[in-house]
Amino acid sequence: MAKRNLYLSNTPIDEAREKYMNALDFGALVKYETIPVTEALGRITRNAVYAKYSSPLFNAAAMDGIAAVSKRTEGARETDPVILKKDEDFIIVDTGDPVRPPFDCVIMAEDLTPLENGDVTIYASASPWQHVRPVGEDIVAGEMILPSAHRIRPIDLGVLLSAGILELEVVKQPVVAIFPTGTEIIEPEEEPKEGDIIESNSRMFQGMVQEHGGIGKRYPHIVDDYELIREKIAEAVKTHDMVIVNAGSSAGTEDFTVHVLRELGEVIVHGVAVKPGKPVILAVVEGKPVIGLPGYPVSAYIAFENFVAPVLAGMTKFETDQTEYVDAVISRRLVSSLKHREYVRVKVGKVDGRFVAAPLARGAGAAMSLVRADGFCIIEQNQEGVEAGEQVKVQLYRSKREIENTLVVIGSHDMILDVASDMMPNRYRDMFVSSTHVGSMAGLMALARGETHISPCHLLDEDTGEYNVSYVKKLFREPMAVIKGVGRIQGIMVKKGNPLNIQGVEDLTRCKYVNRQRGAGTRVLFDYKLKSAGIDPKNIDGYDREAATHMAAAALVKGDSADAAMGIFSAAKAMGLDFIEIGSEEYDFVIRQKDLQLPQVKAFLEIITDPEFKKTLTEMGGYSFERTGEIICVE
Amino acid sequence: MAKRNLYLSNTPIDEAREKYMNALDFGALVKYETIPVTEALGRITRNAVYAKYSSPLFNAAAMDGIAAVSKRTEGARETDPVILKKDEDFIIVDTGDPVRPPFDCVIMAEDLTPLENGDVTIYASASPWQHVRPVGEDIVAGEMILPSAHRIRPIDLGVLLSAGILELEVVKQPVVAIFPTGTEIIEPEEEPKEGDIIESNSRMFQGMVQEHGGIGKRYPHIVDDYELIREKIAEAVKTHDMVIVNAGSSAGTEDFTVHVLRELGEVIVHGVAVKPGKPVILAVVEGKPVIGLPGYPVSAYIAFENFVAPVLAGMTKFETDQTEYVDAVISRRLVSSLKHREYVRVKVGKVDGRFVAAPLARGAGAAMSLVRADGFCIIEQNQEGVEAGEQVKVQLYRSKREIENTLVVIGSHDMILDVASDMMPNRYRDMFVSSTHVGSMAGLMALARGETHISPCHLLDEDTGEYNVSYVKKLFREPMAVIKGVGRIQGIMVKKGNPLNIQGVEDLTRCKYVNRQRGAGTRVLFDYKLKSAGIDPKNIDGYDREAATHMAAAALVKGDSADAAMGIFSAAKAMGLDFIEIGSEEYDFVIRQKDLQLPQVKAFLEIITDPEFKKTLTEMGGYSFERTGEIICVE
Repeated sequence: MAKRNLYLSNTPIDEAREKYMNALDFGALVKYETIPVTEALGRITRNAVYAKYSSPLFNAAAMDGIAAVSKRTEGARETDPVILKKDEDFIIVDTGDPVRPPFDCVIMAEDLTPLENGDVTIYASASPWQHVRPVGEDIVAGEMILPSAHRIRPIDLGVLLSAGILELEVVKQPVVAIFPTGTEIIEPEEEPKEGDIIESNSRMFQGMVQEHGGIGKRYPHIVDDYELIREKIAEAVKTHDMVIVNAGSSAGTEDFTVHVLRELGEVIVHGVAVKPGKPVILAVVEGKPVIGLPGYPVSAYIAFENFVAPVLAGMTKFETDQTEYVDAVISRRLVSSLKHREYVRVKVGKVDGRFVAAPLARGAGAAMSLVRADGFCIIEQNQEGVEAGEQVKVQLYRSKREIENTLVVIGSHDMILDVASDMMPNRYRDMFVSSTHVGSMAGLMALARGETHISPCHLLDEDTGEYNVSYVKKLFREPMAVIKGVGRIQGIMVKKGNPLNIQGVEDLTRCKYVNRQRGAGTRVLFDYKLKSAGIDPKNIDGYDREAATHMAAAALVKGDSADAAMGIFSAAKAMGLDFIEIGSEEYDFVIRQKDLQLPQVKAFLEIITDPEFKKTLTEMGGYSFERTGEIICVE
Repeated sequence: MAKRNLYLSNTPIDEAREKYMNALDFGALVKYETIPVTEALGRITRNAVYAKYSSPLFNAAAMDGIAAVSKRTEGARETDPVILKKDEDFIIVDTGDPVRPPFDCVIMAEDLTPLENGDVTIYASASPWQHVRPVGEDIVAGEMILPSAHRIRPIDLGVLLSAGILELEVVKQPVVAIFPTGTEIIEPEEEPKEGDIIESNSRMFQGMVQEHGGIGKRYPHIVDDYELIREKIAEAVKTHDMVIVNAGSSAGTEDFTVHVLRELGEVIVHGVAVKPGKPVILAVVEGKPVIGLPGYPVSAYIAFENFVAPVLAGMTKFETDQTEYVDAVISRRLVSSLKHREYVRVKVGKVDGRFVAAPLARGAGAAMSLVRADGFCIIEQNQEGVEAGEQVKVQLYRSKREIENTLVVIGSHDMILDVASDMMPNRYRDMFVSSTHVGSMAGLMALARGETHISPCHLLDEDTGEYNVSYVKKLFREPMAVIKGVGRIQGIMVKKGNPLNIQGVEDLTRCKYVNRQRGAGTRVLFDYKLKSAGIDPKNIDGYDREAATHMAAAALVKGDSADAAMGIFSAAKAMGLDFIEIGSEEYDFVIRQKDLQLPQVKAFLEIITDPEFKKTLTEMGGYSFERTGEIICVE
């Protein structure tokens, strides 16, 4: 089994970055190139740029009219007009035409009367240089038009060309070699077998390098072989400005990277006090930065932002970091160790005029949590955590504008939420749905704490047999509403062909079961069914094994670790499982009455009552729409 | 002369935009395409994307250790350990390895002792599924991973590939045809002659289209010919998603565009109540948006942002507008007409903890003012203007971070400021200099109002013959400092070869002169010299003609409209003029004593005392450095 062949240091993140930046000679790392102005958008100037031509290039008419000799206009007034002779005292000009001696002023067309012979009468004298744009009024040849280290904008392109600049020297975009490593990984194109891991980090890095002004070159993955890895890196540092080696940066038996880098160059830091993202290698080989990033996607992302990004900023001479921050109320208590700075992914919503941050899965492997998240809540190394309801700073990686236009949904999961969030931005430009799946009960709690706009739930009241309303009555003091959603068929999901011939809950005692988390409507229903059947949960093998969503439960049944789980028809269908119906339930949306007026909520209401919405759900199957969209007020 | 052949409407800007957006059928204009995920960075999803594979694809070990049968571990405790048989009760696994039946849990390497025969001893029982990442823990096949209308980020690329998605449907980037028009315009490559205008707007549009998610195709310019313009547009709408026609959008004799568009399609709006940018044409031809933009760069830029950008946002289904706004104090009174909304270009600086906006040239032709500006101060149509010192909202097009790291310099102009702003960001990463040239006296006024960090000036005290210090004493009550700058040779700039044989101020009575603006140190010096020579300004032809900088004055002398101007040697040299020295002066920097501690100021001080700085200036000539960097405190 894996022998720890060395130990990672636990260098504080800022100290690690500083150490590394100081170990790099950016004077030598920054390179330059001369390119045509027409291709310079977004590039960074090396030096100040000076105009070659003036603009205007000549004294030009600023109006349509005549260019005249000002002396000849002296004394002209309404009562005593002056006649100017064509081609002698004046010539006709349009805006932009040159004004040459002897002419030294422009008189507007509106201010004169033409005569038959082509001469004109004027009624006021003209001062020298009136309505004339003097040469160089806009740009003077020889003056500085752009400073050094300036990022070229579209408006700069225009002025550069007007000033006669066709080429300019800019910072060269650093070329970064990206090497995935690992014996178990496969390319996305390949059909994955059990034990395979699809390599995808390198594509994420490529995108991140691009966003930070570099060019990412992704190379085929290298198997865990010391010689091979050394060979590739030694070669890459000669032909690239920077090298990223992915995975193998930890301290396991097959983590060769650090040894290779020690042999080829100098390892400045190995192991950083950050979670996730600890196993990072910061090395220098032949003066080039070589960075080993952890294999787990989330760790890799955080390590990149903290160490690769600043190095790229140094090499491009441009700070790309435009990260937005918001102050948000954290929805759950977060405990964190003093051993490291922790990056907790959070979903952020704007509810009741305040930003609320809801923490997501914290595992380093949960790449989806990175996609679902809107940003990070950062818990510093000297912090033990934050209490629920506390104000935290959230580093956003989704735009604030988008977040403010998002309908927040926290509660029980159903595929109809996916359908809705798909339809929303297509129907209503710039309006989004963000849903977090915590189960019915936890959703209502979040609603009570003002962390969500609406909570989808399906809670059966065992006494009344009624769904949802009685729970809302019990839990809330203020005027609430229940928006009727859909009727849902609940049942038991079993393997295709139902090998264990399961016909109802009573048969679940003779199979491996997967349950849903506490507070989930499906679990409440399951307990109710067990009770009515007089079955003791102790006799259900796997009663304590929890899946977070219908789909997650279905996936486990699909695999070989479980035989059955309660769930909805659409999930079973999506996973190709058999389904034994055991009843229908009401899946509704709980909301504060005042929030019924929110534009996102109105949009959501229009969507769930839309024919297309019903059509899609009908194709998925297992849904009915008797009362969809009906609003029940609960005072 | 130009006959007005039609009149522009004066439609309020928001009304014009709404009218036009409603006239376009975006349902038909938005197109889609399927592309490889690896090329999808920054693109917008058409529909929600659902996972093809789960991740992990199988129940996987979350730790290095052994995969065991949990039942066999029952009862194990410190005092009563249990031995597990290799390959029967357990197998060895590394993190990520599959956990298959009969094995249903993972025990960490740290928690067991290996025996000679390969078996292991454990000291605690293991619960089912402990340290196992169940299939689909991260991504469940069939679940939604990205919603519709979502802009793809690097992290999304990773998850898409892990979920087995290799291609996806995205919004097609609209292709925009860009046609410059005009008989007088030439391509940047050509050598300009008098009367020529270098065409550069189209390159600015290309960049702007790109920044708004489209692809700009720039075509060679079309001369002002009705048939030709009609032909090109008619052809372009068939092969492009949008067409931009530049210039010819006004109402002059040669403005054919609007007539062409009336013939080919429908003109929705011609003429908008915005300044600059009034002559805009918003038309629809064969369902495609065709927009005529004004010829003046600033008008063109503002019209693009107001009309082209929103159309592109509609066609890309993505709002690219990330414009930053700041509240700033306006430094000058701005009067604006009720006839239009006005966009005033402003330089923004952070002085004394508040943002200050200094208005720049307002002419539509002043492209450089667009480059120099940091943003716009928008004066609404119903507003008559703003008073100096009033709070205004400024729409930034330079990053707030950059602005906060900028040393603000307002006062007299000298090329050494260009040299300094060139060196600053190269020496001190992410530190900038922004200088506005208003003359010595106006600069000190700005300093007094707290609008600048530093004011460069060269004001001669006629009584004491001393420079600058006495003015500072007179003007300021608080502790100030004068940072000694350079000694500068002042003189008379004349045409090469000095055709009029000018030897001193007394000779200026017999030539065309160009003066500097009131309050400029050079003008003060000139008046002093005239006085000592007993010359009446009335006898100087052109005494009232003002140029704003040394270079601008030199440019006029270089042209044929003036013979002489006062200025500094380096300006004369840069313009290839002859120079008659008439004395040396002291060009210094005035600052508040407390501001001497600002990092930007310290950096600036280091730069002006840097050998390289002196070297560059010596090459330019006309400077001396006796006291450069010396600080004189003025209480």
